Amino acid sequence: MMHLGAFLMESGHHVAAWRASSVPPRAGLDFALYRQLARTAEAACFDAIFVADSVAADEGPGAERMSRSARFEPLTLLSALAAVTERIGLIATATSSYNEPYTVARQFASLEHLSGGRAGWNLVTSDNAAEAGNFGRAEHIAHEDRYARAREFLQVVLALWDSWGDDAFVNDKATGLHHDPAQRHELNHRGEHFAVRGPLNVARSPQGRPVLVQAGASEAGRALAAASAELVFTAQPNRAAGQAFYADLKARAAAFGRAPEALKVMPGVFAVVGESRAEAQEKHEALQALVHPEAGVALVSRMIGNFDLSGYPLDEPLPELPETSTGQRSRQQLLSSLARDGQLTLRQLALKIAGGRGHLSVVGTAADVADVLQDWFEAGAADGFNLMPPTVPAGLDDFARLVVPELQRRGLFRQRYEGRTLREHLGLAWPAHRLPTEHLKTAQA
Amino acid sequence: MMHLGAFLMESGHHVAAWRASSVPPRAGLDFALYRQLARTAEAACFDAIFVADSVAADEGPGAERMSRSARFEPLTLLSALAAVTERIGLIATATSSYNEPYTVARQFASLEHLSGGRAGWNLVTSDNAAEAGNFGRAEHIAHEDRYARAREFLQVVLALWDSWGDDAFVNDKATGLHHDPAQRHELNHRGEHFAVRGPLNVARSPQGRPVLVQAGASEAGRALAAASAELVFTAQPNRAAGQAFYADLKARAAAFGRAPEALKVMPGVFAVVGESRAEAQEKHEALQALVHPEAGVALVSRMIGNFDLSGYPLDEPLPELPETSTGQRSRQQLLSSLARDGQLTLRQLALKIAGGRGHLSVVGTAADVADVLQDWFEAGAADGFNLMPPTVPAGLDDFARLVVPELQRRGLFRQRYEGRTLREHLGLAWPAHRLPTEHLKTAQA
Repeated sequence: MMHLGAFLMESGHHVAAWRASSVPPRAGLDFALYRQLARTAEAACFDAIFVADSVAADEGPGAERMSRSARFEPLTLLSALAAVTERIGLIATATSSYNEPYTVARQFASLEHLSGGRAGWNLVTSDNAAEAGNFGRAEHIAHEDRYARAREFLQVVLALWDSWGDDAFVNDKATGLHHDPAQRHELNHRGEHFAVRGPLNVARSPQGRPVLVQAGASEAGRALAAASAELVFTAQPNRAAGQAFYADLKARAAAFGRAPEALKVMPGVFAVVGESRAEAQEKHEALQALVHPEAGVALVSRMIGNFDLSGYPLDEPLPELPETSTGQRSRQQLLSSLARDGQLTLRQLALKIAGGRGHLSVVGTAADVADVLQDWFEAGAADGFNLMPPTVPAGLDDFARLVVPELQRRGLFRQRYEGRTLREHLGLAWPAHRLPTEHLKTAQA
Repeated sequence: MMHLGAFLMESGHHVAAWRASSVPPRAGLDFALYRQLARTAEAACFDAIFVADSVAADEGPGAERMSRSARFEPLTLLSALAAVTERIGLIATATSSYNEPYTVARQFASLEHLSGGRAGWNLVTSDNAAEAGNFGRAEHIAHEDRYARAREFLQVVLALWDSWGDDAFVNDKATGLHHDPAQRHELNHRGEHFAVRGPLNVARSPQGRPVLVQAGASEAGRALAAASAELVFTAQPNRAAGQAFYADLKARAAAFGRAPEALKVMPGVFAVVGESRAEAQEKHEALQALVHPEAGVALVSRMIGNFDLSGYPLDEPLPELPETSTGQRSRQQLLSSLARDGQLTLRQLALKIAGGRGHLSVVGTAADVADVLQDWFEAGAADGFNLMPPTVPAGLDDFARLVVPELQRRGLFRQRYEGRTLREHLGLAWPAHRLPTEHLKTAQA
């Protein structure tokens, strides 16, 4: 069976989504809308909803034409959504670059208990100057340093999540013993980036620990994901690239002694769905027509490594750019090949990525979309997909109403939830409790 | 009219609450229970619910006999409660000692939008070694340094909350202008403790900004509260002390040019309520009988400045203790005078504070409790009270069912909510937008 995530982004994934008449104003801070989206995704039996993040407002030329500068913080948003849903997983992004591991471990553990075991943590590193500037750093941290910090951050968080045994809180009212001191484990960690004593002030979580999610595509990102991630989101423009990434990541995981099913690979898919192909095309063209040239160029500028392209001619080929020093190197390569292979001008590239930002994109009927997903799934390019609705709520509604039943008819997707936790939805094994020292030792080796 | 907060603490405020048969097991991580409590408080028209915090598990002798080591993190908990309530205010504690101002500003701003303007931030400083050890500090920060950091932290948070103008997000679909660049304000702050560029990636909040809450009783704490707090929680053992504190704080606020009604003072009240005095006494005695001596001594040890008293004889007077270097100096003085004035042994002091921890405590009928609250309110000792239920849910139910109607009959408490935001419930003025530079300048002066 295929897995499905609903990747929710403010007004939708299309850069002009906020201008569509069906999209509520100020969607990024509209809780009623998010509640509706979460319930739609849950009614369609999605494995999880997923929220990306940035620890800075969008900036630079064209920012005022994009809808990314005002939105909910993921952990507070998903905690609120936990209270109005029952089964669907809740995956929040949190950076290891500008947080403390105790705080991140604690907030996710809290979300675990609030949701009855439905939390996932998308570990990212932060890569741009705007984010650095909000946390007292003049420059962003260099790529390798970010990953060294991320690795240690992760080992501390894992150890904190296991700082109480499964049965630590005995709650023995008769004798007055609230917890078993033998199941209380300090970390006493002193590493290169962090010194953390522990224990966490939250009990071990309903699904053992939150599901570990990553999306790094670089060498360092893949290495970390292969060693530790249980779910990997990725941007793949075509099936061959998807297959290569999938095979590479599963092989890397095997080298760490991990079974292929312990790590699920889910490419993003930008899908514009219609009752007919003509209707889908119309919907897509209507959105494309709303792309202000400044917003289009702004999107390319950001996705290609934060190079300001606002001065470049729209109708000439994308200029040659030096390799970015941000964490967007893989995305830069992806967009550069898209432009080169398709001989695209800057304007054409902007329109090409205005929806899917380089991810797999499909415009068509439910059968068209299901065909592509089935093909990727059966060809070993994906264990599932992270759906990127072009607009909300309509884009998600379309997929839930048209594509999900088609996938279900084909026996590719569940008709009801069998489990209660995100781990159960994804078919991931229960993580047995390990002593904090084991987590810290393993990751240091 | 009097204001009422519901101070929710795991199993309840009595140190033995978790052993009472009516209290659900593992109450600190039971969301269904918290939802019930929030709805009870909202049905009774409380101004707010309030959640305290510590960024460490409880430790030291007797910790295993207390219920403080496993509980929800406040911002995630209150975000979830925002989704299942409509009107009641949501006040979360967050420390300035081990957080980044951008993160705190952002999570509270997010809670503001999730809740439609019902958030309050209880700014605290962290004062013990267990907390320091979880954030890479060998020792806790000295008292004055903590407050210097807190002052700068607050000015940065205020500036971030105003980093977008009230009407910044114009969302003009026709022209494609999402926000007005003229209403986007960077901070470019470089201070002693923080360097933060801004702007925040959340719009200005529904009530202008979250309500600012503080509870510091020291000289530095009072000075900060007088300058900036809109609501002050305090522990006062008797009316005379309450009057002195109230007068002092209002006078200090006046010295900053602030009107008396711009700052509300709310002492805690531990109330055990029965249909009759005998029933109230029985309830209280039943809880007192559940206090394990080790838990009682552990509580005194913690409240008196983290001195380990576990080796001291139970039935002799409290030993003389040196002045604590933690932030609990005021509480240490309060408990020392309680013991000295009442000529209490260690065991007697433990039982005396087992419920209210030195706060105003009342055991009696609804009329008895209402009499005391009315007396303090009319005598200028309080603008309202922060209710500390002995157990949950029963202790809160009793107060809501018996005392609230009595206060309403006396015309002292609202019968329905008039406003929608916490600021409206408390009768606090709308904070006009100020440029970040003004916030940063004022606080530095």
